[in-house]
Amino acid sequence: MRMKSKALAGRGRLELDTPCLALDLDLLDANLRNMQARVRAGNKILRPHAKTHKCSKLARRQIEAGAPGLCAAKVSEAEALVRAGLRNILVTGPVVTSEKIRRLAGCREADPKLAVVLDDFENARALNAAMAGSGQKLDVLVDVDVGLGRTGVPPERAGELARKVMEQPNLRFRGIQAYAGHVQHIRDHALRRAESLACMAPAAEAVRALRAAGAECEVLSGAGTGTFDCDLEIPELTELQAGSYAVMDAEYMAIGSASNPDRFDEFKPALTLFTTVVSANQAGFVTLDAGLKAVYQHGGRPYPVSGRDSGSTYDWFGDEYGRLTFAAGARQPRVGDVVELVVSHCDPTINLHDEFMVTRNGRVVDAWPIDLRGCCR
Amino acid sequence: MRMKSKALAGRGRLELDTPCLALDLDLLDANLRNMQARVRAGNKILRPHAKTHKCSKLARRQIEAGAPGLCAAKVSEAEALVRAGLRNILVTGPVVTSEKIRRLAGCREADPKLAVVLDDFENARALNAAMAGSGQKLDVLVDVDVGLGRTGVPPERAGELARKVMEQPNLRFRGIQAYAGHVQHIRDHALRRAESLACMAPAAEAVRALRAAGAECEVLSGAGTGTFDCDLEIPELTELQAGSYAVMDAEYMAIGSASNPDRFDEFKPALTLFTTVVSANQAGFVTLDAGLKAVYQHGGRPYPVSGRDSGSTYDWFGDEYGRLTFAAGARQPRVGDVVELVVSHCDPTINLHDEFMVTRNGRVVDAWPIDLRGCCR
Repeated sequence: MRMKSKALAGRGRLELDTPCLALDLDLLDANLRNMQARVRAGNKILRPHAKTHKCSKLARRQIEAGAPGLCAAKVSEAEALVRAGLRNILVTGPVVTSEKIRRLAGCREADPKLAVVLDDFENARALNAAMAGSGQKLDVLVDVDVGLGRTGVPPERAGELARKVMEQPNLRFRGIQAYAGHVQHIRDHALRRAESLACMAPAAEAVRALRAAGAECEVLSGAGTGTFDCDLEIPELTELQAGSYAVMDAEYMAIGSASNPDRFDEFKPALTLFTTVVSANQAGFVTLDAGLKAVYQHGGRPYPVSGRDSGSTYDWFGDEYGRLTFAAGARQPRVGDVVELVVSHCDPTINLHDEFMVTRNGRVVDAWPIDLRGCCR
Repeated sequence: MRMKSKALAGRGRLELDTPCLALDLDLLDANLRNMQARVRAGNKILRPHAKTHKCSKLARRQIEAGAPGLCAAKVSEAEALVRAGLRNILVTGPVVTSEKIRRLAGCREADPKLAVVLDDFENARALNAAMAGSGQKLDVLVDVDVGLGRTGVPPERAGELARKVMEQPNLRFRGIQAYAGHVQHIRDHALRRAESLACMAPAAEAVRALRAAGAECEVLSGAGTGTFDCDLEIPELTELQAGSYAVMDAEYMAIGSASNPDRFDEFKPALTLFTTVVSANQAGFVTLDAGLKAVYQHGGRPYPVSGRDSGSTYDWFGDEYGRLTFAAGARQPRVGDVVELVVSHCDPTINLHDEFMVTRNGRVVDAWPIDLRGCCR
């Protein structure tokens, strides 16, 4: 069922069994280096989000490139990262049930720098109770809602909740998380920058107020790939949670950057999907072997990597199939032809697959298990 | 990371770690019995599609309920079914690459009744060549396009391709496949029936023409959950490929049936998703722990199972989260509360999970691995 990965080393990209996710190692490394350099130049730290790539090998590469720690969206992701030997994990969503809190405490045993966000006082008490008797404190960030409305307390309530966290003997208040998810994909860069700075301002104000009141508020964690350069301007921000920058996708490629209004050219699409033509009985289009279950129908339409198929258009064609419509006059793809696509929204698409085929100069050089795949708890 | 399944036996449904897919065994069995009885009464056979549930334990239950064989969409699904000891598998899409053809031939060694569809003469030659020297023949159905336009030859070319298949010494022509995927979700039952009968008519005509010419054309395989009762009226149809009927979803529940214009009440939603409230700081809605990665954003909106949360509305809220909007005046759900949802499009949603928690009378009685999960090749 799954590819015997290592045995494929040396195989050409077009010879892979499809549908198949591939990572171009040189493009990936360039993305990692680029973001790391930009964040370091801004005197911040980079805490890449592992929810995007779901791969502990890729996470380790981010650490080796200079990131001191990682983000995880769920406890099960943190567990997988800790199991892979990675440390300094921030769980970026509230952990509220007794079963998950128990597992979070298990991660904390292995990772002294493990931290979790919260947005609810009862949750703070439950986390504190779970740590009782362990002799350890759990690091906590107060999650602040800056307009997405998904998790977090309003900025004006951050100080109050922070002080309640400080009263818990087994918790250690570290700072604030503020994630402006609703801003990341605004197409116009100037507007995106203005919106991000505006909505992050109350979170920065909460940090300043806590510090002015004498609290140790070391961390303001936030930002994503879309606003990374904008948010570097925020003095109070200490760390960036970007995820997509590592591999990119059609959704991010379609927004503008500071220097290019039509294309987000800060990072390159290192991630592509290979898919094969399985039927060619129609005029104007052919049918591919990748559909809803291989490339998630959300956040941008996959598009062919430039070359023979550029100018063609991908569309979903049911659970198992895609449709490649080609321009009039173009060579009709034939049954068995392989097409390479930049994927739609990378996070949920990666979560459909079990491994990345890692390539360099068009040849397979490794296979990395997507070992956090399915970790939604 | 994954639940230690058997240890959960006896646990209440609301005590499950979330997000979590659950199967109500009594509802599932009622659906299996009902479809089996309807198809048998129509003098057809039922060949349930395993692409829906991706679970060999559920597939075995369908066999035990009276189905003589199964459908698989991909070779990797067929391999997993064969590995689980199941036989008489029809692969419902063309298998065109040399690697996949080799693996298909491997399945054929274990399963003498294995069959595959094709819609291309070169593909017939390649399949024939792969079987050479094996001393075995591979059963083949000619795939006919009845309007979906995805795979298949036009009905008027079915006879020509069938005769070419008959000329291949290592292939055995068995009949025709015709799947009207574009008709399955038409809301009005009378219109759906009319459309299905109209588009299936040329496929039935192709069967009659082949038989009139003396060909052995034993099989006409097609139909889905949406048109099962309509297609039972087609004399030439020999078998139904329905999949969703076993577990159901919000997409199918929203269309009409023969007896109810507002609800497809032939089968019951045996499949639900349990999700937990993780944040409750907003007026009018709370945030759940199930988003794009737990319930696929396609084909209908998940809805709460009637009870405390009925009248509430689910919406996706990013990769990891959902939003439950509750009616004015309703009790506000609290952090930690569990909500049970009928899922959106069941096929791709199931493919996001590793197991079904199987329940009866509200208690966990078993856990079934979703062992075909990720089999997209």
